[in-house]
Amino acid sequence: MSKIKAAVMEKVNGEIKIEIKEFSEPVLEEGAVLLKTMYSEICGTDVHLSHGQLAEVPYPLIPGHINVGVIEKMNGNICDIEGNAFKVGDMVTFLDVHETCNQCWYCLVAKATTRCPKRKVYGITYSAKDGLLGGWSQKIYLKPGVKIIKLPSNLPPIDFIAGGCGAPTALHAVERATIKLDNTVVVQGSGPVGLYAAVFSMLSGAGQVIVVDPSSNRLEMAKQIGVDYTIDASTGEDRVAQVRQLTNGRGADVTIEASGNPKAVSEGMNMTRDNGTYVVVGQYTDAGDVSINPHWQINKKHLDIRGTWGIDYSHLYKTVRLMAKQQERFGWHRLVSKIYSLDEVEMALNDVERLQVIKAVIAPN
Amino acid sequence: MSKIKAAVMEKVNGEIKIEIKEFSEPVLEEGAVLLKTMYSEICGTDVHLSHGQLAEVPYPLIPGHINVGVIEKMNGNICDIEGNAFKVGDMVTFLDVHETCNQCWYCLVAKATTRCPKRKVYGITYSAKDGLLGGWSQKIYLKPGVKIIKLPSNLPPIDFIAGGCGAPTALHAVERATIKLDNTVVVQGSGPVGLYAAVFSMLSGAGQVIVVDPSSNRLEMAKQIGVDYTIDASTGEDRVAQVRQLTNGRGADVTIEASGNPKAVSEGMNMTRDNGTYVVVGQYTDAGDVSINPHWQINKKHLDIRGTWGIDYSHLYKTVRLMAKQQERFGWHRLVSKIYSLDEVEMALNDVERLQVIKAVIAPN
Amino acid sequence: MSKIKAAVMEKVNGEIKIEIKEFSEPVLEEGAVLLKTMYSEICGTDVHLSHGQLAEVPYPLIPGHINVGVIEKMNGNICDIEGNAFKVGDMVTFLDVHETCNQCWYCLVAKATTRCPKRKVYGITYSAKDGLLGGWSQKIYLKPGVKIIKLPSNLPPIDFIAGGCGAPTALHAVERATIKLDNTVVVQGSGPVGLYAAVFSMLSGAGQVIVVDPSSNRLEMAKQIGVDYTIDASTGEDRVAQVRQLTNGRGADVTIEASGNPKAVSEGMNMTRDNGTYVVVGQYTDAGDVSINPHWQINKKHLDIRGTWGIDYSHLYKTVRLMAKQQERFGWHRLVSKIYSLDEVEMALNDVERLQVIKAVIAPN
Amino acid sequence: MSKIKAAVMEKVNGEIKIEIKEFSEPVLEEGAVLLKTMYSEICGTDVHLSHGQLAEVPYPLIPGHINVGVIEKMNGNICDIEGNAFKVGDMVTFLDVHETCNQCWYCLVAKATTRCPKRKVYGITYSAKDGLLGGWSQKIYLKPGVKIIKLPSNLPPIDFIAGGCGAPTALHAVERATIKLDNTVVVQGSGPVGLYAAVFSMLSGAGQVIVVDPSSNRLEMAKQIGVDYTIDASTGEDRVAQVRQLTNGRGADVTIEASGNPKAVSEGMNMTRDNGTYVVVGQYTDAGDVSINPHWQINKKHLDIRGTWGIDYSHLYKTVRLMAKQQERFGWHRLVSKIYSLDEVEMALNDVERLQVIKAVIAPN
Repeated sequence: MSKIKAAVMEKVNGEIKIEIKEFSEPVLEEGAVLLKTMYSEICGTDVHLSHGQLAEVPYPLIPGHINVGVIEKMNGNICDIEGNAFKVGDMVTFLDVHETCNQCWYCLVAKATTRCPKRKVYGITYSAKDGLLGGWSQKIYLKPGVKIIKLPSNLPPIDFIAGGCGAPTALHAVERATIKLDNTVVVQGSGPVGLYAAVFSMLSGAGQVIVVDPSSNRLEMAKQIGVDYTIDASTGEDRVAQVRQLTNGRGADVTIEASGNPKAVSEGMNMTRDNGTYVVVGQYTDAGDVSINPHWQINKKHLDIRGTWGIDYSHLYKTVRLMAKQQERFGWHRLVSKIYSLDEVEMALNDVERLQVIKAVIAPN
Repeated sequence: MSKIKAAVMEKVNGEIKIEIKEFSEPVLEEGAVLLKTMYSEICGTDVHLSHGQLAEVPYPLIPGHINVGVIEKMNGNICDIEGNAFKVGDMVTFLDVHETCNQCWYCLVAKATTRCPKRKVYGITYSAKDGLLGGWSQKIYLKPGVKIIKLPSNLPPIDFIAGGCGAPTALHAVERATIKLDNTVVVQGSGPVGLYAAVFSMLSGAGQVIVVDPSSNRLEMAKQIGVDYTIDASTGEDRVAQVRQLTNGRGADVTIEASGNPKAVSEGMNMTRDNGTYVVVGQYTDAGDVSINPHWQINKKHLDIRGTWGIDYSHLYKTVRLMAKQQERFGWHRLVSKIYSLDEVEMALNDVERLQVIKAVIAPN
Repeated sequence: MSKIKAAVMEKVNGEIKIEIKEFSEPVLEEGAVLLKTMYSEICGTDVHLSHGQLAEVPYPLIPGHINVGVIEKMNGNICDIEGNAFKVGDMVTFLDVHETCNQCWYCLVAKATTRCPKRKVYGITYSAKDGLLGGWSQKIYLKPGVKIIKLPSNLPPIDFIAGGCGAPTALHAVERATIKLDNTVVVQGSGPVGLYAAVFSMLSGAGQVIVVDPSSNRLEMAKQIGVDYTIDASTGEDRVAQVRQLTNGRGADVTIEASGNPKAVSEGMNMTRDNGTYVVVGQYTDAGDVSINPHWQINKKHLDIRGTWGIDYSHLYKTVRLMAKQQERFGWHRLVSKIYSLDEVEMALNDVERLQVIKAVIAPN
Repeated sequence: MSKIKAAVMEKVNGEIKIEIKEFSEPVLEEGAVLLKTMYSEICGTDVHLSHGQLAEVPYPLIPGHINVGVIEKMNGNICDIEGNAFKVGDMVTFLDVHETCNQCWYCLVAKATTRCPKRKVYGITYSAKDGLLGGWSQKIYLKPGVKIIKLPSNLPPIDFIAGGCGAPTALHAVERATIKLDNTVVVQGSGPVGLYAAVFSMLSGAGQVIVVDPSSNRLEMAKQIGVDYTIDASTGEDRVAQVRQLTNGRGADVTIEASGNPKAVSEGMNMTRDNGTYVVVGQYTDAGDVSINPHWQINKKHLDIRGTWGIDYSHLYKTVRLMAKQQERFGWHRLVSKIYSLDEVEMALNDVERLQVIKAVIAPN
């Protein structure tokens, strides 16, 4: 049986190195599935992992949390949540989040499963020592209980992976935003989370969607997917003033922060109208503090601010269905800037970090 | 006809001075009411007014926004919202907020009347030149359309004024907090807003209410009204740790900021559990900025933050009814530390500023 | 000065008759506007008015509550809610609902202005004796305080009137439905309210929209505006079974009743999944009772049912904006089946009653 | 080892018979617990079970779904949701609902676990053939994963069982009711669900709580726990009129149906004010249909109606905590009318059916 290649991040003398390693094909437990990886993705979190910027990561690690692949082997009869049995050859994705316990205070009383302390995430909190538990690998081992979703026939794998983790994360943020018909929505940042936040805002009936970003490539893509206005953050112009001008001086009903820049949080509050809603979803790593004025920006503004962490099954499920339904309108694959082989993951990480790509995809086979 | 005395704040060479002035009795327009003031109150906003710390205040000004008095004269048939006609001799209060327009974008589309630009407030945004439009006066002129509420017979005026503006403001904050049965609620600050936020949290079915304050007098009062725990903020001890200890390490379900200290905002976020709710109601003046970490304190925490500005009619209406119903249990008048005459308003302002009183009341007649 | 013609419904010996009458041009109060009517509409309520089926109607009456016209005269400076002054020649519509009082319990405490007892509605609760207060008239008198909206240049009057009262009513119903991304929505009935409920559900991000109606014309229109499925209610087939088949056996996440048939209410509950949401907006007149089983259809189903009455300013405001934005995609004027002159209003009423038209429009000039 | 006695309902020739049977002590699986039963309860569902009125019940059955007992044996280390290990001798209760799957559409997408098709309930959907899975037994077998809660020291077992299943069911209903401070709440029916709905409404800050019931005993108990008004449903008087009289003619903000009578559903709608909320929680079995008028009672009333089915862990958890906290104020044990031995369960069922007791308790040992 041939070996399985995977890109592994290792910590050597405090430095993160990436190497292609070979693994044996795993024996499947009852309920487990082996996936032949079609595509994995590179996201901002992977860049942070490559710099050792996340706490408590169990290096060595196979990155890649949102993935799509073909079922190669299964041990037992495995069904989706509607009772449809999977079969070998199915093109599927799966929820990277695993083992939320359904028996802790957060799962049962707060009903906030993304804060369950038992929560594990493929490609982030599992170690390569535990198996093929990340997508930068020719094969992925789906542990029993991992929640698998078959791609609909009208959603080709390249279109699905164009969403990556950004799409379900954005969907969660847009759910938190409770956008109402005709609302003006500002999205700060037009990386994958920002672009999909703009898409889902449009689909939610926003009256106008405004995207703010310093990258002309990204703003161009925002225009192509149909947002109403873009604001170029690379000029010295007053971005808050521009938003106000588009909103009769009031600011946006809803602003969604998807930039990763702490300073954007203060600016985003100012872009939002009194009694509006501000969703913070871009601050996935600690990039520092920001100074705010609680009188003007929270109390007198009568503002709602909503942090958004992670995703649960419903977000991935709905993302797959919505992307399939809207495939013709949006042509998701256009967001994939480049497909990299396993040998090129360092280049891919570089390209993502330098914002030279919108969505970077790994094709490990 | 004898003259009416009122305490007036004037701006003289950039300094605010307070003087007792005499006014003639006003002629009542159709729909207007003249009130003989029983009690007015002194709140933190009055202290800020006395230091010129609020923007756009039309000095000279008669302060005193929440008041109780006896109807002395009326021009026309005037009813409450349920159609009951008022009569001379009725002991009433009224909503200080006036003239929200019901025809602007905030009133009609956002349905956020406390952000209506036409909004006027007795004792704050009306000038003494416009008439007897504040409570530190022997009589108060209620303009046509001012919303008047008769005190129920089981709510004596001294008990009502013990709530002052703090009570309806706190009620609004507690509504924003959407407290659920068995929730742990932390209240930061136990001035009037904080104490009433604690009271309304208890009445909303909180499982435990914890009050944090540096003043032992105020904490003592918090205990007397029945809160479950108090945390003395004057010691060097870690207040966040104390909250966590009372909540199995998680933090409060709901935290309500009622301190006025910008730094409390960052601490309050940390006192709140993941996916909890943080209400900011104490930052009624600009007391400076605060530095926060949007990754740890908003995004990963999956926190809801809700600013709360002002009150509308419903808050005063419900406050009166709830205070009447709960009068026996709480004995509101206990919160009145001292009653001052018109001549003593400067002393009263001093006492409030130095936190030497809980509720300071003015009796102008 | 020439006379103004209007169609007036009169009650003669208990029968409602319609006659064209002539009125003199009214003198404008301060703040009033005279509109030259471009289009009015005929809706189901007008049919009920013509049969005397509504209680407390002040016949004689000029029907026509949603209208569009040109400002011919104004007395004073009149602005929209954003402060833009209107001028003679502007093409405008206005909110038929008038005089919600902003001082009763429903307005101020419940914040349910559509239940304000002072509420008046053009074309329904005003008498012809009070003036030109309905749209089946060459001119309409807009009383001071009537809320006027200028049509955007990208929303021609014929496209706006294609929405009629059905569009803002449907928008209100869809707001009540709190549709979430990917939800399946069933709409019962595809008259104007139903079709616009389908449209606004699509715009709210529904995953699939299913329309049920017995009329093949109306279902054809539903398909043209892009709904996902239609169910022909004229066949003997089990409609609930058809909905379940489209929803993996569960029923719709949201069902919106827009049929006017009391029996639809029981069927609609069955079309909705457990813990789904059922909005009742079609029962605008008393068409009789329906028998339901509270165990199976409410309690065990854990169902949310939400009645929807009337509209407020926000619904008309958002309708105008959304229709303008989506004009290219939907081509609203296609829903106008026929334009009638004032002399033809009885024919128009007949056509509406027999479901032979989708939207019937009156052009009084 | 001595035998374990339990009361078993069996179906013999279509009739339900109750017999005391003996069982051997079960061997504990890993993670299982054996409880020595202190108290079980008899509720309305048990009466329905004794008449064979519920569908798909796996007779023979040991009834008794809410129970309290002492841990006699455990296999393995078993913790509560906060990580506290249980030990032999602990006085505990447990959630009767078991095996909601956390992997079906209802659990994961709708997040409506009480509608999970895999859901099992002790004393109702488990057969006596499967083991000691009901509380009318000297011992109860807690399967691995059953969620156990230790009674706080300030909640004696007799006080806890006074809540029975009615208390957490009522808590769920009150959560669905989203009661706001000062709301008027009407509760229809004052059996255990109704009385606890009244209690939790009071704890939620209701301004007045009104209980309607035909039984003078039950109304007496309602008064003792402190409700504001009772309405005797056994007189011929107009109950809706009485509610309106207590609410300035408007009806209740919130009405909670806890009567089990289908006709109460129509009456309850009429008792609720326009744009109020009506919660249906008493229709746990199919007791027939009711005729309603969707125009007057739903659409024009702009009513919210919310069905409430079952409970989840959070409801039991919060009930235990709230009952402990409020034990002194309410003295829950007062609601226990009578304690029956296992031999007396038929008498107990009779007493419950004839409404001669408020809470009937079984003490099997």
